[in-house]
Amino acid sequence: MKTQYYTATSLDGFIADSQNSLDWLFQFGEAEDGSYLNFIRKVGAIAMGSTTYEWILNHHLNEGAECPQAWPYEQPTWVFTSRILPIIKGADIRFVKGDVFPVHQQMIAVAGNKNIWLVGGGDLVGQFHDQGLLDEVIVQIASVTLGSGAPLLPRQIVTPPLKLLSAKVYGNAFAELHYEVPRPR
Amino acid sequence: MKTQYYTATSLDGFIADSQNSLDWLFQFGEAEDGSYLNFIRKVGAIAMGSTTYEWILNHHLNEGAECPQAWPYEQPTWVFTSRILPIIKGADIRFVKGDVFPVHQQMIAVAGNKNIWLVGGGDLVGQFHDQGLLDEVIVQIASVTLGSGAPLLPRQIVTPPLKLLSAKVYGNAFAELHYEVPRPR
Repeated sequence: MKTQYYTATSLDGFIADSQNSLDWLFQFGEAEDGSYLNFIRKVGAIAMGSTTYEWILNHHLNEGAECPQAWPYEQPTWVFTSRILPIIKGADIRFVKGDVFPVHQQMIAVAGNKNIWLVGGGDLVGQFHDQGLLDEVIVQIASVTLGSGAPLLPRQIVTPPLKLLSAKVYGNAFAELHYEVPRPR
Repeated sequence: MKTQYYTATSLDGFIADSQNSLDWLFQFGEAEDGSYLNFIRKVGAIAMGSTTYEWILNHHLNEGAECPQAWPYEQPTWVFTSRILPIIKGADIRFVKGDVFPVHQQMIAVAGNKNIWLVGGGDLVGQFHDQGLLDEVIVQIASVTLGSGAPLLPRQIVTPPLKLLSAKVYGNAFAELHYEVPRPR
């Protein structure tokens, strides 16, 4: 069981642009030979922040959504929020707030021997890392720079550094880098 | 002849930390099997900003420098600055300011069929890109996150995106990504 941050990012380290848009990412279409299908089938529990959740609502589920689609995850999903957010019928969503540690314990219990996926945003993932709960970072670096936006992982992870496990190229748009995260000293 | 931005960066897109330090980079030592030697022998002219120049002075050349070393480049080097900066005896350094275009023309004339290296910082490279003068971006992504610092390339390069040419791994510390930069539409 591993706790993994799996996300697309710009080359300059932003996971959404300053308008909270992912249009820069979607211009590349779906990477059919990408790693997602292989990744997601090993995931047993999902966590995300409220901005990510609301992005999915607006982009996929709300009336007039740009890209109408059902809730995309079968796995139980914990949404960190201090606000009341709309629920989605038929989706296993658990709203939580505050310390990530007890939530991570719940997620481990549910995930069994499968992995835990931290979808984002960056600060939520940082909160897991602050408590030594982040095992791996897997980023698909899209071939763009954004200049500003939502940060990939607003933390200093320098000593010890991450450990690069692999680099793969998907088409001429994505480089996927896979890192192991050391336990903070 | 290509104009290339060749630099190390953190995974989250910073080329120096918030104290303008590169200690996060130097912890990895010199990458003996890296791409630098092969890169630099094809370089005929160099440009950098004043912060980069002063970093070299402080780190390598000034009295009491942390890592004493002679000026590292044989190639003619243009330093963009609006201030009076110390000269280095025996180094071919040309102080310039303002529009990058006429300076680029001078650099082309000197570089011959060799390449032009934009050392940084990010905004200076952005100024070359703004005028369609940047051909390639070659980044060594160090296995760290910094959370804040000097940005890799504070520009939106989205439409058309960069074109990923290759991804290579050097040890477990660096992934080198090589991009071709499209001409702005």
